[in-house]
Amino acid sequence: MFDRLCIVGCGLIGGSIARAARSQGLCREIVALGREVHLPELMAARRLGVVDDYYTSPGQALERADCVIIATPVGAVRSVFEQLAPFWNNTTVYSDACSTKASVVAAAQAVFGKAPANFVPAHPIAGAERSGVEASSAELFNNRRLIITPLADTDAAALDAIRRFWEQMGSTVAVMSVEHHDTVLAATSHLPHILAFALAGLLGRQDEQREIFKYAAGGFKDFSRIASSDPTMWLDICLANKQEIMPLIRQYRAELSRIEQMLADDQAQQLFETFAYARDARQRFLDQLED
Amino acid sequence: MFDRLCIVGCGLIGGSIARAARSQGLCREIVALGREVHLPELMAARRLGVVDDYYTSPGQALERADCVIIATPVGAVRSVFEQLAPFWNNTTVYSDACSTKASVVAAAQAVFGKAPANFVPAHPIAGAERSGVEASSAELFNNRRLIITPLADTDAAALDAIRRFWEQMGSTVAVMSVEHHDTVLAATSHLPHILAFALAGLLGRQDEQREIFKYAAGGFKDFSRIASSDPTMWLDICLANKQEIMPLIRQYRAELSRIEQMLADDQAQQLFETFAYARDARQRFLDQLED
Repeated sequence: MFDRLCIVGCGLIGGSIARAARSQGLCREIVALGREVHLPELMAARRLGVVDDYYTSPGQALERADCVIIATPVGAVRSVFEQLAPFWNNTTVYSDACSTKASVVAAAQAVFGKAPANFVPAHPIAGAERSGVEASSAELFNNRRLIITPLADTDAAALDAIRRFWEQMGSTVAVMSVEHHDTVLAATSHLPHILAFALAGLLGRQDEQREIFKYAAGGFKDFSRIASSDPTMWLDICLANKQEIMPLIRQYRAELSRIEQMLADDQAQQLFETFAYARDARQRFLDQLED
Repeated sequence: MFDRLCIVGCGLIGGSIARAARSQGLCREIVALGREVHLPELMAARRLGVVDDYYTSPGQALERADCVIIATPVGAVRSVFEQLAPFWNNTTVYSDACSTKASVVAAAQAVFGKAPANFVPAHPIAGAERSGVEASSAELFNNRRLIITPLADTDAAALDAIRRFWEQMGSTVAVMSVEHHDTVLAATSHLPHILAFALAGLLGRQDEQREIFKYAAGGFKDFSRIASSDPTMWLDICLANKQEIMPLIRQYRAELSRIEQMLADDQAQQLFETFAYARDARQRFLDQLED
Protein backbone atom coordinates (compact mmCIF):
# COMPACT_ATOMS: atom_id res chain seq x y z
CA MET A 1 0.00 0.00 0.00
CA PHE A 2 3.03 2.28 0.27
CA ASP A 3 5.90 2.42 -2.16
CA ARG A 4 8.68 3.52 0.15
CA LEU A 5 8.28 3.42 3.94
CA CYS A 6 10.78 5.38 6.00
CA ILE A 7 11.11 4.35 9.66
CA VAL A 8 12.72 7.00 11.86
CA GLY A 9 14.41 5.19 14.77
CA CYS A 10 14.86 1.49 14.22
CA GLY A 11 14.65 -0.14 17.67
CA LEU A 12 12.14 -2.65 18.99
CA ILE A 13 9.07 -0.75 17.75
CA GLY A 14 10.48 0.63 14.49
CA GLY A 15 12.04 -2.72 13.64
CA SER A 16 8.79 -4.55 14.39
CA ILE A 17 6.81 -2.15 12.17
CA ALA A 18 9.29 -2.81 9.35
CA ARG A 19 9.13 -6.59 9.82
CA ALA A 20 5.33 -6.65 10.03
CA ALA A 21 4.90 -4.34 7.02
CA ARG A 22 7.25 -6.51 5.00
CA SER A 23 5.66 -9.79 6.01
CA GLN A 24 2.23 -8.42 5.06
CA GLY A 25 3.55 -7.01 1.79
CA LEU A 26 2.51 -3.46 2.67
CA CYS A 27 5.50 -1.63 1.09
CA ARG A 28 7.82 -2.15 -1.84
CA GLU A 29 10.83 -0.70 -0.04
CA ILE A 30 11.63 0.01 3.63
CA VAL A 31 14.41 2.31 4.77
CA ALA A 32 15.51 3.55 8.17
CA LEU A 33 16.63 7.01 9.19
CA GLY A 34 18.69 7.29 12.36
CA ARG A 35 21.41 9.27 14.06
CA GLU A 36 25.15 8.61 13.72
CA VAL A 37 25.28 7.33 17.31
CA HIS A 38 22.84 4.58 16.34
CA LEU A 39 24.90 3.32 13.37
CA PRO A 40 25.44 -0.12 14.96
CA GLU A 41 21.68 -0.56 15.32
CA LEU A 42 21.02 0.71 11.77
CA MET A 43 23.65 -1.68 10.41
CA ALA A 44 22.08 -4.54 12.35
CA ALA A 45 18.67 -3.66 10.92
CA ARG A 46 20.01 -3.95 7.36
CA ARG A 47 22.05 -7.08 8.12
CA LEU A 48 18.96 -8.76 9.59
CA GLY A 49 16.93 -7.81 6.51
CA VAL A 50 14.59 -5.68 8.63
CA VAL A 51 15.16 -2.70 6.29
CA ASP A 52 16.49 -2.48 2.75
CA ASP A 53 18.79 0.40 3.55
CA TYR A 54 19.53 3.03 6.18
CA TYR A 55 20.53 6.68 6.20
CA THR A 56 21.77 9.17 8.74
CA SER A 57 20.84 12.17 6.58
CA PRO A 58 17.15 12.91 6.10
CA GLY A 59 17.40 14.08 2.49
CA GLN A 60 18.21 10.66 1.06
CA ALA A 61 16.03 8.73 3.48
CA LEU A 62 12.93 10.80 2.76
CA GLU A 63 13.38 10.97 -1.00
CA ARG A 64 10.39 9.29 -2.65
CA ALA A 65 9.10 8.09 0.79
CA ASP A 66 5.28 8.12 0.72
CA CYS A 67 5.01 7.06 4.37
CA VAL A 68 7.20 8.14 7.29
CA ILE A 69 6.75 6.69 10.78
CA ILE A 70 8.56 8.13 13.77
CA ALA A 71 9.45 5.36 16.22
CA THR A 72 12.01 7.12 18.39
CA PRO A 73 11.77 7.69 22.15
CA VAL A 74 9.26 10.42 22.99
CA GLY A 75 11.99 12.85 24.01
CA ALA A 76 13.56 12.81 20.53
CA VAL A 77 10.40 13.63 18.58
CA ARG A 78 10.84 17.39 18.46
CA SER A 79 14.33 17.12 16.98
CA VAL A 80 13.01 14.56 14.48
CA PHE A 81 10.33 17.03 13.36
CA GLU A 82 13.09 19.64 12.96
CA GLN A 83 15.03 17.19 10.80
CA LEU A 84 11.99 16.37 8.69
CA ALA A 85 10.67 19.93 8.30
CA PRO A 86 12.85 21.07 5.36
CA PHE A 87 11.80 17.98 3.38
CA TRP A 88 8.12 17.93 4.40
CA ASN A 89 5.98 16.67 1.53
CA ASN A 90 2.26 17.25 1.44
CA THR A 91 1.55 14.02 -0.47
CA THR A 92 3.41 11.86 2.06
CA VAL A 93 1.65 10.31 5.08
CA TYR A 94 3.45 10.90 8.39
CA SER A 95 2.72 9.12 11.65
CA ASP A 96 4.41 8.06 14.88
CA ALA A 97 4.38 5.22 17.40
CA CYS A 98 5.09 7.12 20.60
CA SER A 99 3.54 6.24 23.98
CA THR A 100 2.35 9.76 24.77
CA LYS A 101 0.37 11.89 22.36
CA ALA A 102 -0.03 15.41 23.77
CA SER A 103 3.74 15.81 23.89
CA VAL A 104 4.12 14.63 20.29
CA VAL A 105 1.42 17.02 19.10
CA ALA A 106 3.04 19.85 21.09
CA ALA A 107 6.39 19.07 19.42
CA ALA A 108 4.75 19.24 15.98
CA GLN A 109 3.09 22.54 16.87
CA ALA A 110 6.38 23.95 18.16
CA VAL A 111 8.21 23.09 14.93
CA PHE A 112 5.47 23.70 12.33
CA GLY A 113 3.34 26.39 14.04
CA LYS A 114 0.44 23.97 13.84
CA ALA A 115 0.54 20.19 13.46
CA PRO A 116 0.55 19.34 9.73
CA ALA A 117 -2.72 17.84 8.45
CA ASN A 118 -0.85 14.86 6.98
CA PHE A 119 0.66 13.89 10.33
CA VAL A 120 -1.46 11.20 12.05
CA PRO A 121 -0.55 10.70 15.75
CA ALA A 122 -0.76 7.00 16.64
CA HIS A 123 0.28 4.59 19.37
CA PRO A 124 0.49 0.78 19.20
CA ILE A 125 -0.30 -0.72 22.63
CA ALA A 126 2.49 -3.23 22.48
CA GLY A 127 5.99 -3.46 23.73
CA ALA A 128 8.26 -5.54 25.80
CA GLU A 129 10.85 -5.03 28.48
CA ARG A 130 13.38 -5.97 25.79
CA SER A 131 14.59 -3.30 23.42
CA GLY A 132 16.59 -2.95 20.22
CA VAL A 133 16.07 -4.12 16.65
CA GLU A 134 17.33 -7.63 17.50
CA ALA A 135 14.24 -8.08 19.70
CA SER A 136 11.87 -6.85 16.98
CA SER A 137 9.19 -9.17 15.66
CA ALA A 138 6.70 -9.21 12.80
CA GLU A 139 4.10 -10.44 15.30
CA LEU A 140 4.47 -7.69 17.91
CA PHE A 141 1.31 -5.85 16.86
CA ASN A 142 -0.80 -8.84 15.97
CA ASN A 143 -3.99 -8.92 18.06
CA ARG A 144 -2.96 -5.73 19.83
CA ARG A 145 -4.68 -2.37 19.92
CA LEU A 146 -3.52 0.66 17.96
CA ILE A 147 -4.84 4.05 19.00
CA ILE A 148 -5.06 6.94 16.54
CA THR A 149 -5.52 10.39 18.08
CA PRO A 150 -6.43 12.73 15.22
CA LEU A 151 -6.60 16.51 15.58
CA ALA A 152 -9.45 18.65 14.27
CA ASP A 153 -7.81 19.18 10.89
CA THR A 154 -6.06 15.84 10.45
CA ASP A 155 -6.44 14.75 6.83
CA ALA A 156 -9.07 12.02 6.50
CA ALA A 157 -7.24 10.18 3.73
CA ALA A 158 -4.00 10.12 5.74
CA LEU A 159 -5.86 8.86 8.78
CA ASP A 160 -7.50 6.16 6.73
CA ALA A 161 -4.19 5.06 5.23
CA ILE A 162 -2.63 4.71 8.68
CA ARG A 163 -5.68 2.85 9.96
CA ARG A 164 -5.52 0.32 7.11
CA PHE A 165 -1.76 -0.01 7.47
CA TRP A 166 -2.09 -1.10 11.12
CA GLU A 167 -5.16 -3.24 10.55
CA GLN A 168 -3.23 -5.20 7.96
CA MET A 169 -0.49 -5.78 10.55
CA GLY A 170 -3.13 -7.42 12.75
CA SER A 171 -3.97 -4.53 15.09
CA THR A 172 -7.41 -3.46 16.24
CA VAL A 173 -7.62 0.28 15.62
CA ALA A 174 -9.38 2.69 17.99
CA VAL A 175 -9.74 6.44 17.45
CA MET A 176 -9.89 8.82 20.43
CA SER A 177 -8.80 12.29 21.46
CA VAL A 178 -5.22 13.05 22.43
CA GLU A 179 -6.35 13.89 25.97
CA HIS A 180 -8.34 10.69 26.42
CA HIS A 181 -5.41 8.62 25.19
CA ASP A 182 -2.99 10.22 27.62
CA THR A 183 -5.39 9.84 30.55
CA VAL A 184 -6.08 6.18 29.84
CA LEU A 185 -2.46 5.23 29.20
CA ALA A 186 -1.31 7.04 32.34
CA ALA A 187 -3.53 4.65 34.31
CA THR A 188 -3.00 1.40 32.42
CA SER A 189 0.67 1.71 31.55
CA HIS A 190 2.60 4.68 32.94
CA LEU A 191 1.46 4.36 36.58
CA PRO A 192 2.12 0.57 36.69
CA HIS A 193 5.63 1.14 35.37
CA ILE A 194 6.33 3.75 38.04
CA LEU A 195 4.94 1.43 40.74
CA ALA A 196 7.14 -1.43 39.54
CA PHE A 197 10.25 0.78 39.41
CA ALA A 198 9.46 2.09 42.91
CA LEU A 199 9.08 -1.42 44.36
CA ALA A 200 12.16 -2.88 42.67
CA GLY A 201 14.14 0.12 43.94
CA LEU A 202 12.83 -0.14 47.50
CA LEU A 203 13.51 -3.86 47.69
CA GLY A 204 16.86 -3.47 45.96
CA ARG A 205 18.06 -1.12 48.69
CA GLN A 206 16.85 -3.55 51.37
CA ASP A 207 18.56 -6.42 49.56
CA GLU A 208 21.85 -4.54 49.76
CA GLN A 209 21.58 -4.55 53.55
CA ARG A 210 20.43 -8.13 53.94
CA GLU A 211 19.48 -10.71 51.37
CA ILE A 212 15.81 -10.65 50.60
CA PHE A 213 15.65 -11.34 46.85
CA LYS A 214 16.52 -15.00 47.34
CA TYR A 215 13.25 -15.41 49.20
CA ALA A 216 11.16 -13.67 46.56
CA ALA A 217 9.04 -15.88 44.35
CA GLY A 218 6.99 -15.81 41.18
CA GLY A 219 4.65 -13.11 42.45
CA PHE A 220 7.44 -10.57 42.74
CA LYS A 221 8.94 -11.73 39.44
CA ASP A 222 5.75 -11.04 37.47
CA PHE A 223 4.88 -7.92 39.42
CA SER A 224 8.27 -6.37 38.72
CA ARG A 225 8.74 -7.49 35.11
CA ILE A 226 8.07 -3.99 33.76
CA ALA A 227 10.79 -2.63 36.08
CA SER A 228 13.20 -4.22 33.61
CA SER A 229 12.08 -1.72 30.97
CA ASP A 230 14.47 0.79 29.44
CA PRO A 231 14.98 3.66 31.96
CA THR A 232 15.66 6.27 29.27
CA MET A 233 12.49 5.48 27.38
CA TRP A 234 10.43 5.58 30.58
CA LEU A 235 12.04 8.79 31.77
CA ASP A 236 10.86 10.37 28.50
CA ILE A 237 7.35 8.97 28.77
CA CYS A 238 6.89 9.95 32.41
CA LEU A 239 8.09 13.50 31.91
CA ALA A 240 6.03 13.88 28.72
CA ASN A 241 2.81 12.78 30.41
CA LYS A 242 3.47 13.99 33.94
CA GLN A 243 0.31 16.11 34.10
CA GLU A 244 -1.78 12.93 33.82
CA ILE A 245 0.54 10.72 35.89
CA MET A 246 1.00 12.90 38.96
CA PRO A 247 -2.67 12.96 40.01
CA LEU A 248 -2.76 9.17 39.63
CA ILE A 249 0.27 8.75 41.89
CA ARG A 250 -1.56 10.85 44.47
CA GLN A 251 -4.74 8.75 44.14
CA TYR A 252 -2.71 5.58 44.44
CA ARG A 253 -0.92 6.82 47.55
CA ALA A 254 -4.33 7.68 49.05
CA GLU A 255 -5.50 4.13 48.25
CA LEU A 256 -2.47 2.75 50.08
CA SER A 257 -3.15 5.02 53.06
CA ARG A 258 -6.68 3.69 53.18
CA ILE A 259 -5.42 0.08 53.23
CA GLU A 260 -2.81 0.94 55.85
CA GLN A 261 -5.53 2.41 58.04
CA MET A 262 -7.68 -0.70 57.64
CA LEU A 263 -4.71 -2.79 58.78
CA ALA A 264 -4.05 -0.50 61.74
CA ASP A 265 -7.71 -0.73 62.80
CA ASP A 266 -8.12 -4.46 62.01
CA GLN A 267 -11.01 -3.64 59.68
CA ALA A 268 -11.25 -7.17 58.33
CA GLN A 269 -14.51 -6.71 56.45
CA GLN A 270 -13.42 -3.55 54.61
CA LEU A 271 -10.05 -5.09 53.79
CA PHE A 272 -11.73 -8.20 52.43
CA GLU A 273 -14.03 -6.09 50.28
CA THR A 274 -11.07 -4.08 48.98
CA PHE A 275 -9.16 -7.21 47.98
CA ALA A 276 -12.24 -8.94 46.56
CA TYR A 277 -13.19 -5.88 44.47
CA ALA A 278 -9.63 -5.78 43.11
CA ARG A 279 -9.66 -9.47 42.23
CA ASP A 280 -13.01 -9.09 40.47
CA ALA A 281 -11.77 -6.02 38.60
CA ARG A 282 -8.76 -7.93 37.33
CA GLN A 283 -11.04 -10.76 36.25
CA ARG A 284 -13.04 -8.23 34.22
CA PHE A 285 -9.77 -7.17 32.58
CA LEU A 286 -8.86 -10.81 31.80
CA ASP A 287 -12.31 -11.52 30.36
CA GLN A 288 -11.86 -8.61 27.93
CA LEU A 289 -8.44 -9.89 26.88
CA GLU A 290 -10.00 -13.20 25.87
CA ASP A 291 -12.74 -11.58 23.82
CA MET B 1 10.16 -41.52 56.17
CA PHE B 2 6.76 -41.14 57.88
CA ASP B 3 4.24 -43.87 58.34
CA ARG B 4 1.07 -41.80 58.43
CA LEU B 5 1.02 -38.16 57.35
CA CYS B 6 -1.98 -36.08 58.37
CA ILE B 7 -2.58 -32.90 56.35
CA VAL B 8 -4.81 -30.37 58.10
CA GLY B 9 -6.54 -28.31 55.39
CA CYS B 10 -6.35 -29.85 51.95
CA GLY B 11 -6.32 -26.95 49.48
CA LEU B 12 -3.62 -25.94 47.01
CA ILE B 13 -0.75 -26.15 49.52
CA GLY B 14 -1.96 -29.14 51.57
CA GLY B 15 -2.88 -31.05 48.42
CA SER B 16 0.49 -30.29 46.83
CA ILE B 17 2.34 -31.50 49.95
CA ALA B 18 0.34 -34.74 49.82
CA ARG B 19 1.02 -35.22 46.11
CA ALA B 20 4.73 -34.47 46.42
CA ALA B 21 5.15 -36.68 49.50
CA ARG B 22 3.43 -39.52 47.70
CA SER B 23 5.36 -39.13 44.48
CA GLN B 24 8.63 -39.16 46.45
CA GLY B 25 7.51 -42.14 48.55
CA LEU B 26 7.88 -40.23 51.81
CA CYS B 27 4.84 -41.73 53.64
CA ARG B 28 3.01 -45.02 53.68
CA GLU B 29 -0.38 -43.40 54.21
CA ILE B 30 -1.71 -39.85 53.81
CA VAL B 31 -4.93 -38.60 55.37
CA ALA B 32 -6.60 -35.20 55.48
CA LEU B 33 -8.33 -33.51 58.40
CA GLY B 34 -10.78 -30.76 57.57
CA ARG B 35 -13.96 -29.05 58.66
CA GLU B 36 -17.47 -30.12 57.69
CA VAL B 37 -17.83 -27.04 55.48
CA HIS B 38 -14.92 -28.28 53.41
CA LEU B 39 -16.37 -31.74 52.78
CA PRO B 40 -16.58 -31.20 48.99
CA GLU B 41 -12.87 -30.38 48.89
CA LEU B 42 -11.99 -33.34 51.15
CA MET B 43 -14.03 -35.67 48.95
CA ALA B 44 -12.30 -34.30 45.87
CA ALA B 45 -8.92 -34.93 47.50
CA ARG B 46 -9.77 -38.60 48.03
CA ARG B 47 -11.38 -38.97 44.61
CA LEU B 48 -8.26 -37.52 42.95
CA GLY B 49 -6.05 -39.90 44.94
CA VAL B 50 -4.34 -36.97 46.65
CA VAL B 51 -5.07 -38.53 50.07
CA ASP B 52 -5.98 -42.07 51.09
CA ASP B 53 -8.76 -40.92 53.37
CA TYR B 54 -10.21 -37.87 55.08
CA TYR B 55 -11.77 -37.06 58.45
CA THR B 56 -13.67 -34.21 60.00
CA SER B 57 -12.96 -35.34 63.56
CA PRO B 58 -9.40 -35.04 64.81
CA GLY B 59 -9.36 -38.24 66.89
CA GLN B 60 -9.47 -40.59 63.92
CA ALA B 61 -7.35 -38.43 61.67
CA LEU B 62 -4.53 -38.10 64.19
CA GLU B 63 -4.53 -41.72 65.34
CA ARG B 64 -1.14 -43.26 64.52
CA ALA B 65 -0.11 -40.10 62.57
CA ASP B 66 3.63 -39.57 63.07
CA CYS B 67 3.62 -36.33 61.10
CA VAL B 68 0.96 -33.59 61.07
CA ILE B 69 1.21 -30.56 58.78
CA ILE B 70 -1.14 -27.61 59.13
CA ALA B 71 -1.88 -26.13 55.72
CA THR B 72 -4.91 -23.97 56.51
CA PRO B 73 -5.22 -20.21 56.05
CA VAL B 74 -3.27 -18.32 58.72
CA GLY B 75 -6.45 -17.15 60.45
CA ALA B 76 -7.56 -20.73 61.16
CA VAL B 77 -4.36 -21.90 62.85
CA ARG B 78 -5.35 -21.13 66.41
CA SER B 79 -8.56 -23.15 66.17
CA VAL B 80 -6.57 -25.98 64.56
CA PHE B 81 -4.20 -26.01 67.55
CA GLU B 82 -7.24 -26.16 69.82
CA GLN B 83 -8.51 -29.15 67.85
CA LEU B 84 -5.15 -30.90 67.98
CA ALA B 85 -4.35 -30.15 71.64
CA PRO B 86 -6.32 -33.02 73.29
CA PHE B 87 -4.59 -35.52 71.01
CA TRP B 88 -1.10 -33.99 71.11
CA ASN B 89 1.53 -36.71 70.92
CA ASN B 90 5.12 -36.08 71.94
CA THR B 91 6.51 -38.61 69.46
CA THR B 92 4.73 -37.03 66.49
CA VAL B 93 6.33 -34.29 64.40
CA TYR B 94 4.08 -31.26 63.84
CA SER B 95 4.68 -28.49 61.33
CA ASP B 96 2.81 -25.94 59.25
CA ALA B 97 2.98 -24.25 55.86
CA CYS B 98 1.61 -20.81 56.71
CA SER B 99 2.86 -17.58 55.13
CA THR B 100 3.39 -15.73 58.41
CA LYS B 101 5.32 -17.18 61.31
CA ALA B 102 4.99 -14.88 64.35
CA SER B 103 1.21 -15.25 64.24
CA VAL B 104 1.44 -19.05 64.07
CA VAL B 105 3.87 -19.16 66.99
CA ALA B 106 1.62 -16.80 68.96
CA ALA B 107 -1.35 -19.09 68.28
CA ALA B 108 0.63 -22.09 69.58
CA GLN B 109 1.64 -20.13 72.68
CA ALA B 110 -1.95 -19.06 73.29
CA VAL B 111 -3.22 -22.63 73.13
CA PHE B 112 -0.33 -24.54 74.76
CA GLY B 113 1.15 -21.92 77.09
CA LYS B 114 4.39 -22.25 75.16
CA ALA B 115 4.93 -23.58 71.66
CA PRO B 116 5.48 -27.38 71.86
CA ALA B 117 9.07 -28.48 71.16
CA ASN B 118 7.89 -30.95 68.51
CA PHE B 119 6.14 -28.22 66.50
CA VAL B 120 8.42 -26.94 63.71
CA PRO B 121 7.16 -23.67 62.11
CA ALA B 122 7.83 -23.74 58.37
CA HIS B 123 6.85 -21.89 55.18
CA PRO B 124 7.26 -23.06 51.59
CA ILE B 125 7.87 -20.04 49.29
CA ALA B 126 5.52 -21.24 46.61
CA GLY B 127 1.98 -20.61 45.64
CA ALA B 128 -0.20 -19.53 42.85
CA GLU B 129 -3.15 -17.25 42.32
CA ARG B 130 -5.13 -20.46 41.86
CA SER B 131 -6.44 -22.26 44.91
CA GLY B 132 -8.07 -25.52 45.87
CA VAL B 133 -6.98 -29.15 45.79
CA GLU B 134 -7.78 -29.41 42.06
CA ALA B 135 -4.93 -26.95 41.40
CA SER B 136 -2.47 -28.88 43.59
CA SER B 137 0.68 -30.30 42.04
CA ALA B 138 3.47 -32.68 43.08
CA GLU B 139 5.91 -30.19 41.52
CA LEU B 140 4.80 -27.06 43.38
CA PHE B 141 7.75 -27.08 45.79
CA ASN B 142 10.40 -28.38 43.43
CA ASN B 143 13.29 -25.91 43.16
CA ARG B 144 11.57 -23.57 45.59
CA ARG B 145 12.73 -22.36 48.97
CA LEU B 146 11.37 -23.64 52.26
CA ILE B 147 12.01 -21.59 55.37
CA ILE B 148 12.07 -23.17 58.83
CA THR B 149 11.81 -20.74 61.75
CA PRO B 150 12.69 -22.74 64.88
CA LEU B 151 12.24 -21.40 68.40
CA ALA B 152 14.87 -21.66 71.13
CA ASP B 153 13.58 -25.01 72.35
CA THR B 154 12.41 -26.56 69.08
CA ASP B 155 13.38 -30.24 69.10
CA ALA B 156 16.43 -30.83 66.87
CA ALA B 157 15.24 -34.24 65.65
CA ALA B 158 11.83 -32.84 64.69
CA LEU B 159 13.47 -29.96 62.85
CA ASP B 160 15.77 -32.37 61.04
CA ALA B 161 12.83 -34.58 60.01
CA ILE B 162 10.95 -31.60 58.54
CA ARG B 163 14.09 -30.40 56.79
CA ARG B 164 14.67 -33.79 55.14
CA PHE B 165 10.96 -34.11 54.28
CA TRP B 166 11.04 -30.85 52.29
CA GLU B 167 14.45 -31.47 50.76
CA GLN B 168 13.15 -34.75 49.35
CA MET B 169 10.24 -32.84 47.81
CA GLY B 170 12.84 -30.75 45.94
CA SER B 171 12.93 -27.64 48.15
CA THR B 172 16.02 -25.75 49.26
CA VAL B 173 15.72 -25.35 53.03
CA ALA B 174 16.81 -22.20 54.88
CA VAL B 175 16.64 -21.71 58.64
CA MET B 176 16.06 -18.25 60.10
CA SER B 177 14.34 -16.53 63.01
CA VAL B 178 10.59 -15.95 63.07
CA GLU B 179 11.16 -12.19 63.02
CA HIS B 180 13.54 -12.27 60.08
CA HIS B 181 11.13 -14.42 58.10
CA ASP B 182 8.24 -12.07 58.69
CA THR B 183 10.30 -9.00 57.79
CA VAL B 184 11.63 -10.51 54.58
CA LEU B 185 8.30 -11.91 53.42
CA ALA B 186 6.51 -8.63 54.16
CA ALA B 187 8.83 -7.02 51.59
CA THR B 188 9.03 -9.73 48.94
CA SER B 189 5.47 -11.04 49.05
CA HIS B 190 2.96 -9.25 51.28
CA LEU B 191 3.71 -5.69 50.11
CA PRO B 192 3.62 -6.64 46.39
CA HIS B 193 0.23 -8.28 46.88
CA ILE B 194 -1.16 -5.18 48.55
CA LEU B 195 0.25 -2.98 45.77
CA ALA B 196 -1.34 -5.18 43.11
CA PHE B 197 -4.71 -5.22 44.90
CA ALA B 198 -4.53 -1.42 45.29
CA LEU B 199 -3.80 -0.87 41.59
CA ALA B 200 -6.40 -3.33 40.30
CA GLY B 201 -8.93 -1.65 42.60
CA LEU B 202 -8.03 1.88 41.53
CA LEU B 203 -8.15 1.01 37.83
CA GLY B 204 -11.30 -1.05 38.30
CA ARG B 205 -13.14 1.98 39.66
CA GLN B 206 -11.89 4.09 36.73
CA ASP B 207 -12.94 1.38 34.29
CA GLU B 208 -16.46 1.54 35.65
CA GLN B 209 -16.63 5.21 34.64
CA ARG B 210 -15.00 4.85 31.24
CA GLU B 211 -13.40 1.87 29.59
CA ILE B 212 -9.71 1.71 30.29
CA PHE B 213 -9.00 -2.01 30.68
CA LYS B 214 -9.36 -2.62 26.96
CA TYR B 215 -6.30 -0.46 26.43
CA ALA B 216 -4.21 -2.21 29.07
CA ALA B 217 -1.55 -4.56 27.80
CA GLY B 218 0.83 -7.25 28.96
CA GLY B 219 2.57 -5.00 31.46
CA PHE B 220 -0.58 -4.51 33.50
CA LYS B 221 -1.50 -8.17 33.11
CA ASP B 222 1.74 -9.40 34.67
CA PHE B 223 1.89 -6.62 37.23
CA SER B 224 -1.58 -7.41 38.50
CA ARG B 225 -1.46 -11.21 38.35
CA ILE B 226 -1.19 -11.50 42.14
CA ALA B 227 -4.32 -9.35 42.49
CA SER B 228 -6.17 -12.49 41.36
CA SER B 229 -5.13 -14.20 44.61
CA ASP B 230 -7.69 -15.39 47.16
CA PRO B 231 -8.91 -12.33 49.14
CA THR B 232 -9.66 -14.35 52.30
CA MET B 233 -6.20 -15.86 52.43
CA TRP B 234 -4.57 -12.47 51.88
CA LEU B 235 -6.78 -10.76 54.43
CA ASP B 236 -5.48 -13.30 56.97
CA ILE B 237 -1.85 -12.86 55.96
CA CYS B 238 -1.99 -9.06 55.95
CA LEU B 239 -3.65 -8.82 59.34
CA ALA B 240 -1.31 -11.46 60.81
CA ASN B 241 1.82 -9.63 59.68
CA LYS B 242 0.58 -6.05 59.78
CA GLN B 243 3.34 -4.88 62.13
CA GLU B 244 5.89 -5.63 59.42
CA ILE B 245 3.73 -4.59 56.48
CA MET B 246 2.58 -1.16 57.68
CA PRO B 247 6.07 0.41 57.86
CA LEU B 248 6.76 -0.91 54.36
CA ILE B 249 3.60 0.69 52.99
CA ARG B 250 4.78 3.97 54.50
CA GLN B 251 8.25 3.60 52.96
CA TYR B 252 6.70 2.78 49.61
CA ARG B 253 4.40 5.81 49.75
CA ALA B 254 7.45 7.97 50.55
CA GLU B 255 9.23 6.49 47.54
CA LEU B 256 6.25 7.42 45.36
CA SER B 257 6.24 10.94 46.79
CA ARG B 258 9.89 11.26 45.89
CA ILE B 259 9.19 10.19 42.29
CA GLU B 260 6.18 12.52 42.09
CA GLN B 261 8.39 15.42 43.21
CA MET B 262 11.01 14.55 40.60
CA LEU B 263 8.28 14.67 37.96
CA ALA B 264 6.95 17.96 39.27
CA ASP B 265 10.45 19.48 39.18
CA ASP B 266 11.51 17.84 35.87
CA GLN B 267 14.49 16.27 37.63
CA ALA B 268 15.42 14.11 34.66
CA GLN B 269 18.77 12.92 35.97
CA GLN B 270 17.44 11.79 39.37
CA LEU B 271 14.46 10.12 37.73
CA PHE B 272 16.74 8.28 35.32
CA GLU B 273 18.92 7.11 38.20
CA THR B 274 15.86 5.93 40.13
CA PHE B 275 14.57 3.89 37.18
CA ALA B 276 18.03 2.57 36.27
CA TYR B 277 18.73 1.50 39.88
CA ALA B 278 15.38 -0.32 39.94
CA ARG B 279 16.07 -2.10 36.67
CA ASP B 280 19.51 -3.19 37.89
CA ALA B 281 18.04 -4.38 41.21
CA ARG B 282 15.53 -6.53 39.36
CA GLN B 283 18.33 -7.94 37.22
CA ARG B 284 20.14 -8.94 40.42
CA PHE B 285 16.97 -10.74 41.51
CA LEU B 286 16.71 -12.53 38.13
CA ASP B 287 20.38 -13.56 38.26
CA GLN B 288 19.78 -15.22 41.63
CA LEU B 289 16.73 -17.07 40.30
CA GLU B 290 18.90 -18.61 37.60
CA ASP B 291 21.59 -19.77 40.04
